[in-house]
Amino acid sequence: MKYLNELAEGDKVSAVYLCKKAATLTTKNGKEYMSLTLMDKTANTDAKIWDPDSEGIGDFDELDYISIIGDVTVFNGAIQINIRRLRRAEDGEYNPSDYLPMSPYDADGMYTQLKNVIETVKNPYLNQLLKSFFTDDREFIESFRKSSAAKTVHHGFVGGLIQHTLAVTRLCKYYTKAYTVLDHDLLISAALLHDIGKVRELTRFPENDYSDEGQLLGHIYMGAEMVAENAKKIEGFPTKLLTELQHCILAHHGELEFGSPKTPELIEAYALHMADNTDAKMETFLEAVSGKEPDKWLGINRPLGANIRRTSVWTEETTNE
Amino acid sequence: MKYLNELAEGDKVSAVYLCKKAATLTTKNGKEYMSLTLMDKTANTDAKIWDPDSEGIGDFDELDYISIIGDVTVFNGAIQINIRRLRRAEDGEYNPSDYLPMSPYDADGMYTQLKNVIETVKNPYLNQLLKSFFTDDREFIESFRKSSAAKTVHHGFVGGLIQHTLAVTRLCKYYTKAYTVLDHDLLISAALLHDIGKVRELTRFPENDYSDEGQLLGHIYMGAEMVAENAKKIEGFPTKLLTELQHCILAHHGELEFGSPKTPELIEAYALHMADNTDAKMETFLEAVSGKEPDKWLGINRPLGANIRRTSVWTEETTNE
Amino acid sequence: MKYLNELAEGDKVSAVYLCKKAATLTTKNGKEYMSLTLMDKTANTDAKIWDPDSEGIGDFDELDYISIIGDVTVFNGAIQINIRRLRRAEDGEYNPSDYLPMSPYDADGMYTQLKNVIETVKNPYLNQLLKSFFTDDREFIESFRKSSAAKTVHHGFVGGLIQHTLAVTRLCKYYTKAYTVLDHDLLISAALLHDIGKVRELTRFPENDYSDEGQLLGHIYMGAEMVAENAKKIEGFPTKLLTELQHCILAHHGELEFGSPKTPELIEAYALHMADNTDAKMETFLEAVSGKEPDKWLGINRPLGANIRRTSVWTEETTNE
Amino acid sequence: MKYLNELAEGDKVSAVYLCKKAATLTTKNGKEYMSLTLMDKTANTDAKIWDPDSEGIGDFDELDYISIIGDVTVFNGAIQINIRRLRRAEDGEYNPSDYLPMSPYDADGMYTQLKNVIETVKNPYLNQLLKSFFTDDREFIESFRKSSAAKTVHHGFVGGLIQHTLAVTRLCKYYTKAYTVLDHDLLISAALLHDIGKVRELTRFPENDYSDEGQLLGHIYMGAEMVAENAKKIEGFPTKLLTELQHCILAHHGELEFGSPKTPELIEAYALHMADNTDAKMETFLEAVSGKEPDKWLGINRPLGANIRRTSVWTEETTNE
Amino acid sequence: MKYLNELAEGDKVSAVYLCKKAATLTTKNGKEYMSLTLMDKTANTDAKIWDPDSEGIGDFDELDYISIIGDVTVFNGAIQINIRRLRRAEDGEYNPSDYLPMSPYDADGMYTQLKNVIETVKNPYLNQLLKSFFTDDREFIESFRKSSAAKTVHHGFVGGLIQHTLAVTRLCKYYTKAYTVLDHDLLISAALLHDIGKVRELTRFPENDYSDEGQLLGHIYMGAEMVAENAKKIEGFPTKLLTELQHCILAHHGELEFGSPKTPELIEAYALHMADNTDAKMETFLEAVSGKEPDKWLGINRPLGANIRRTSVWTEETTNE
Amino acid sequence: MKYLNELAEGDKVSAVYLCKKAATLTTKNGKEYMSLTLMDKTANTDAKIWDPDSEGIGDFDELDYISIIGDVTVFNGAIQINIRRLRRAEDGEYNPSDYLPMSPYDADGMYTQLKNVIETVKNPYLNQLLKSFFTDDREFIESFRKSSAAKTVHHGFVGGLIQHTLAVTRLCKYYTKAYTVLDHDLLISAALLHDIGKVRELTRFPENDYSDEGQLLGHIYMGAEMVAENAKKIEGFPTKLLTELQHCILAHHGELEFGSPKTPELIEAYALHMADNTDAKMETFLEAVSGKEPDKWLGINRPLGANIRRTSVWTEETTNE
Repeated sequence: MKYLNELAEGDKVSAVYLCKKAATLTTKNGKEYMSLTLMDKTANTDAKIWDPDSEGIGDFDELDYISIIGDVTVFNGAIQINIRRLRRAEDGEYNPSDYLPMSPYDADGMYTQLKNVIETVKNPYLNQLLKSFFTDDREFIESFRKSSAAKTVHHGFVGGLIQHTLAVTRLCKYYTKAYTVLDHDLLISAALLHDIGKVRELTRFPENDYSDEGQLLGHIYMGAEMVAENAKKIEGFPTKLLTELQHCILAHHGELEFGSPKTPELIEAYALHMADNTDAKMETFLEAVSGKEPDKWLGINRPLGANIRRTSVWTEETTNE
Repeated sequence: MKYLNELAEGDKVSAVYLCKKAATLTTKNGKEYMSLTLMDKTANTDAKIWDPDSEGIGDFDELDYISIIGDVTVFNGAIQINIRRLRRAEDGEYNPSDYLPMSPYDADGMYTQLKNVIETVKNPYLNQLLKSFFTDDREFIESFRKSSAAKTVHHGFVGGLIQHTLAVTRLCKYYTKAYTVLDHDLLISAALLHDIGKVRELTRFPENDYSDEGQLLGHIYMGAEMVAENAKKIEGFPTKLLTELQHCILAHHGELEFGSPKTPELIEAYALHMADNTDAKMETFLEAVSGKEPDKWLGINRPLGANIRRTSVWTEETTNE
Repeated sequence: MKYLNELAEGDKVSAVYLCKKAATLTTKNGKEYMSLTLMDKTANTDAKIWDPDSEGIGDFDELDYISIIGDVTVFNGAIQINIRRLRRAEDGEYNPSDYLPMSPYDADGMYTQLKNVIETVKNPYLNQLLKSFFTDDREFIESFRKSSAAKTVHHGFVGGLIQHTLAVTRLCKYYTKAYTVLDHDLLISAALLHDIGKVRELTRFPENDYSDEGQLLGHIYMGAEMVAENAKKIEGFPTKLLTELQHCILAHHGELEFGSPKTPELIEAYALHMADNTDAKMETFLEAVSGKEPDKWLGINRPLGANIRRTSVWTEETTNE
Repeated sequence: MKYLNELAEGDKVSAVYLCKKAATLTTKNGKEYMSLTLMDKTANTDAKIWDPDSEGIGDFDELDYISIIGDVTVFNGAIQINIRRLRRAEDGEYNPSDYLPMSPYDADGMYTQLKNVIETVKNPYLNQLLKSFFTDDREFIESFRKSSAAKTVHHGFVGGLIQHTLAVTRLCKYYTKAYTVLDHDLLISAALLHDIGKVRELTRFPENDYSDEGQLLGHIYMGAEMVAENAKKIEGFPTKLLTELQHCILAHHGELEFGSPKTPELIEAYALHMADNTDAKMETFLEAVSGKEPDKWLGINRPLGANIRRTSVWTEETTNE
Repeated sequence: MKYLNELAEGDKVSAVYLCKKAATLTTKNGKEYMSLTLMDKTANTDAKIWDPDSEGIGDFDELDYISIIGDVTVFNGAIQINIRRLRRAEDGEYNPSDYLPMSPYDADGMYTQLKNVIETVKNPYLNQLLKSFFTDDREFIESFRKSSAAKTVHHGFVGGLIQHTLAVTRLCKYYTKAYTVLDHDLLISAALLHDIGKVRELTRFPENDYSDEGQLLGHIYMGAEMVAENAKKIEGFPTKLLTELQHCILAHHGELEFGSPKTPELIEAYALHMADNTDAKMETFLEAVSGKEPDKWLGINRPLGANIRRTSVWTEETTNE
Repeated sequence: MKYLNELAEGDKVSAVYLCKKAATLTTKNGKEYMSLTLMDKTANTDAKIWDPDSEGIGDFDELDYISIIGDVTVFNGAIQINIRRLRRAEDGEYNPSDYLPMSPYDADGMYTQLKNVIETVKNPYLNQLLKSFFTDDREFIESFRKSSAAKTVHHGFVGGLIQHTLAVTRLCKYYTKAYTVLDHDLLISAALLHDIGKVRELTRFPENDYSDEGQLLGHIYMGAEMVAENAKKIEGFPTKLLTELQHCILAHHGELEFGSPKTPELIEAYALHMADNTDAKMETFLEAVSGKEPDKWLGINRPLGANIRRTSVWTEETTNE
């Protein structure tokens, strides 16, 4: 397929794209036309249907994959497609991974890893709590697997949330070996649950934007509330254990000014904060330099707070020269 | 009665005090003695029972009101009472308001005011939610009426929470008249509920300190969670209304660095923040200057961030001179 | 009339606008033309007179209301009017409120309210001081009534200063009832006088920009100096009372970093700061959400420091559904 | 004379000291006695007159130099003098410079320098304005010469204000040569006048504390107001020149958070700020290290924000070794 | 010559410019063309050679001065030159000072001044160290004389580094007279050496951008390291003297947040910081207002943190009017 | 042995302590005596020798282990030992680990681990550089093994530097597996070298305080300089590789305000910063809670910025109850 970022003025285009938005408008002289936003993993592009009643234009809805034929023009300095024919695409005509940014890791593989980690949590209450989310709640699992970890910045792709959660959990697993004072079950449970509120904070792709409750309450609050709800359904769940777990979630941004209503007061809460921060920053760096030339400065990266570049590539050969 | 802050070296004392703490210790030469902290509304004072097995020393527990006879000495520059006789005091021998700092306003009167305000909230869901706390839940009402609004700083007395809640609510009532865009029912409900988490964050007097869950979760989180719990029991409670109400509670400290996980995004949330801040600062100022001479500088007041003094007293007479 | 923000390319326009700026320029080939900025309450728009010596172009000055006939074109992506005919408009041909943003409240009504409040200040020195500005000084009154309270942000319209001053004063009046420790006469006087320096800091509409002395000295300094000047003409004005009043004015921004050279050291200064801040923020919020759809996020509002939206509208009907 | 910081328990003392404070008190058994604070340039020391009616105790007032005979004891770990005989000291019996911290520079010499600098200001309005303070106003000159430049931190001694003012003015003089864009007369006038508000902000020695109006208004505001008052008495003083001069004074702390209501907007204002800051910091450093061993760390110096030490002493000999 | 900022659409141009960049590209239809960036002291401008194989286009390299003949067009709103003929310019055909921003002071004169200052440093080790850079190291001297003091902000021109270094050194010289506690030789040496790292941090004109090591290590670190390297070659250089000198260089930005790894702990380090800051800010102000009208506000100047304007011009005449 | 923190008034003491400081002083009546500071791993305690010429007092120096006999008294509220007999202790009479805080890990074991890690660095230049410090430089190795990682806060014990270095290196090793984009050899080398400047910044135990050059230059600068010195002796060491390695060291504190003159611009620099911060914070937490009761709040911990407590202890038994 031809990706949207490859189109040039004058091209004829015949391909399947995801229709992110569609609206019917009226020109000054009272004629109806349609304005669409087409999307693939490389870009969002405006498209117009100047003659929506034409026979060649079939029925479709927002978020459908559509097969179009049209002409590429330039309007106000941006590419625009004038669509002449359009129909809903059928399964098999397109590969979803061409249309949405996706985790480079296999979705089923990540989910299996996550379930394996849960088995290492021996505290029966925490184990049951984890399963109430990750094994028993179909709808939650579906959302958790498809969610991104952020609107932008890092892990902003389908599967980003589970990828980030696993990376944080593995870091915490390493910490439990390096710093044996850490309570394994508390820390691993907190790592697995720390960002579950993002399932409600962000909408699914292709939108991937803040939901109304996400904007008003935030994933930190919602995650702690979700944990409380499920824990209260588990008979005998120790109150103090729940409080400590909720604290880890509330404090995982590390400082008040980053939206945590509490700073870490337990060593597991601090460890979770370090793991979360480490994975977020490593991934931010990685996404920023990936595909860039070594040795070339990329300018100030806002979340990292510095002008950055890829490191020089040193192999035995280059350094022996 | 003679207050603890009036005792001087050499005094004989015979009075009833509240026994805040009591511990049995051993001297170097192996003899047992008891070390007590006595309390009234003016001070905390150390007391010793050097001969706990003496006949004059009756049974008692921490937090009992005890009638004592003893001698006042000075140890390491501080007043200390050596107790010779001790017995539990009986009801009627003492007036609790002499022993704990208390709101200057009548407890029943404040509670009646609060119930009257609830009647002005016409939205049936919010009205029912408010009653689920302030009318229907005996235990909650009891705690809410006795709680302070803070460990120190302002409203740090029995009844401080209800006094502060009413003052904030009255300010918000005024705002709804001055700024008619405000939603009366949402704002008044948020005002009444904004600090209910303090019932769990702080322990009751005479301790009045952070509880374990208070330290780990904070009253902002707990208040929003309590509201969610009760609202979910009310059939048909609109989700968006609940979210907006919770947002007002989460955002009432106004800025992330003051422990709110969200800054105010709705005008009612901002109004609540201003009302809360106004009453907190006015009360802090008032407590700091009350009983002080006008025109005399009192030094830097930490929460207010300034060297403060009472304003000069201007009456028609003084300014006509 | 057709408002400037309604004009589209190709329109013929025949209407009265306010001429904010006018300049005579020369083209590359040496021909003179005029470049104007036209203004109404909806927009500022460029206009050109390519043939200023034409008969149809009458005499006029900057800040005149002018009646024009011309053609609407687009230049560099912005609307431009090519004026063919122009003459000064006469009174009655236009309504000033179409051209300048104005307070929604009646100007005379606000002034009457202000004078009524002054009558409640019984301290003879303060009463006389207030009258020296608001009753006796014709020029000051004229300016004060027409001034905005800010260049942008909030109350940026004709009458904004008196509207804000009254709102702050009413809030302070409420405070004096809620917190009886406050000195009524000092606080109400400070509220009425707190922003009088803005009369000198900002120029009148349609310019409404910082004056040279406004930029160099600021309204906080100038207001305190103006108060000192008038007070020194009142025999026997108590020095300490003047100092306390000036302090309230100097400290009303609450913190050094917001331009107050002193933080509030008297409770009346703190109260004034809270009232000023409350009205400023409520008005900022109100101006930002007014006319917007409920439930729709409006993006980050800089002065409020948050992504904001209008609150959902809850009526008995909607919540009963 | 024996300085107060040299007294030891058991000493007999017979010397002249400055009586900073004196109060008549009553013991528990109802007997009157006097409590004094004696002062010299090395320390403040408590003294008691247990028998004020004794014949040996003459009349005296606070701030008198008094000749005493007494015994040195220790009370609560601090030196105390029990006075047996006391009389007012006569001129010649003492040297004021033993009792108050004083500038190392000659008072008359500094005043002469200051008057010479004024002669270099050729702008007739500025020249006249400077003279209205420094030549014509006896009371002001007296205060200005005796004032310190600060309660603590730097130049906290008699003559500190004029010494600092001269040093800042000389730095500005140097700047006018190095950066010829600077307006000599504006900058030199601003330098001479920048701290005149301190005459009202601080009381004279031996008190040297914030006055009531100093605490409420601050020397920055008061200095600008004083300049306005005198300038308005000079016929024809250009308004803009006055505004620019006042701006330099208001902005001389450089940043809002240091109490300037405006940051420097004119190059002369910036230059004055740099000169003021340079002299303040150099003097702070100098006072902190003077008399200390080279190479020895002195701990964190709060105003300088660093652990400091005197620099090693390098002479041709030491470095040639 | 016609400067680049004077070119208008339709002009024919025949002039010498500096070729800052040159690249050979390919059009969509596979034809090669060249894209150049031409530069003079007024602007950077794009130029194209559509027919690079034409006889009229001679050989040249980036950073050559080239004599061109071409046509001025506008592309995407910006001036572009289509070059028809091109050849390398010869010495004498152009004046380098037309092409690069240059210090207004004579290069040789500044270098002589610098060498004269070195003679006033009597400490033999410091004197020898200074000469190891400024007298003995040809390559260093060449770079130091041609370097700017910054990429932008202030002294961003050829000779800027030596001009700034001299101004700072003269200020320090003044300080040694005003504050005799300062060690002359240490301070003057530190002043001369404080920015030598900029020779490596920035590349030479016309690029004048951060070098790779400049971006990674910074001139503060590199300057201190360069001093250490040269000092270690001087027999007997006292270790403590070297440490103190390096400290002055490391601390000369005054605060950690401005990139100094240490805040000033010695008075000479503080003095150097003040001198550096004073000259940087005075030059920033001067460059911002130079050539601007007095009395006209120039908007917020980022490095100065304020809206600025040129001061009014006061001459005896204007103020006497 | 009886530890210093176990001594009580009236005890006779006969034990070996480390003599940290010793000085000969003179009483008021001119008699010489000695004042000592004795030290073991539990406390520092004052001791006096009132009769230094007595036969029982043998020769000794500061930092000797001394065997004393004396009496424990209390002076100014602190324990003091009056020494009657004193002699140098002999090897075998004491165990150094009783006198200095020491790493819980075996010194030789840690050094072996470190050498093993070096073997995994395959880049020949980096490998040789690491060996130039850790294998070839006897004096450096000795210091590195005995040094603490900090004066206070964390790892403030003998062996703390190597323990911290190993923990950081192991974390980095884990990162290289989790984030394969990281250059193993650069990151591991940077981790091993990041704190080598501490060998010069801090003096050895028992002093463990900032050295003069440590205070003036800091370990960040010194570490980078040390790396440069050794790298320059290795033929062909690639310049860019050295610069990148130095950058990692300079940036390892992560932000300017924590003393790094550069923020991390390479992903390896960011990774090193996260590893350093993680180990520092985990160790700080661990040292703060170790030996404390679970569930008991310990108050605000300054470096961690929070009130902290040990986590509850959850075992299968406790949570099954």
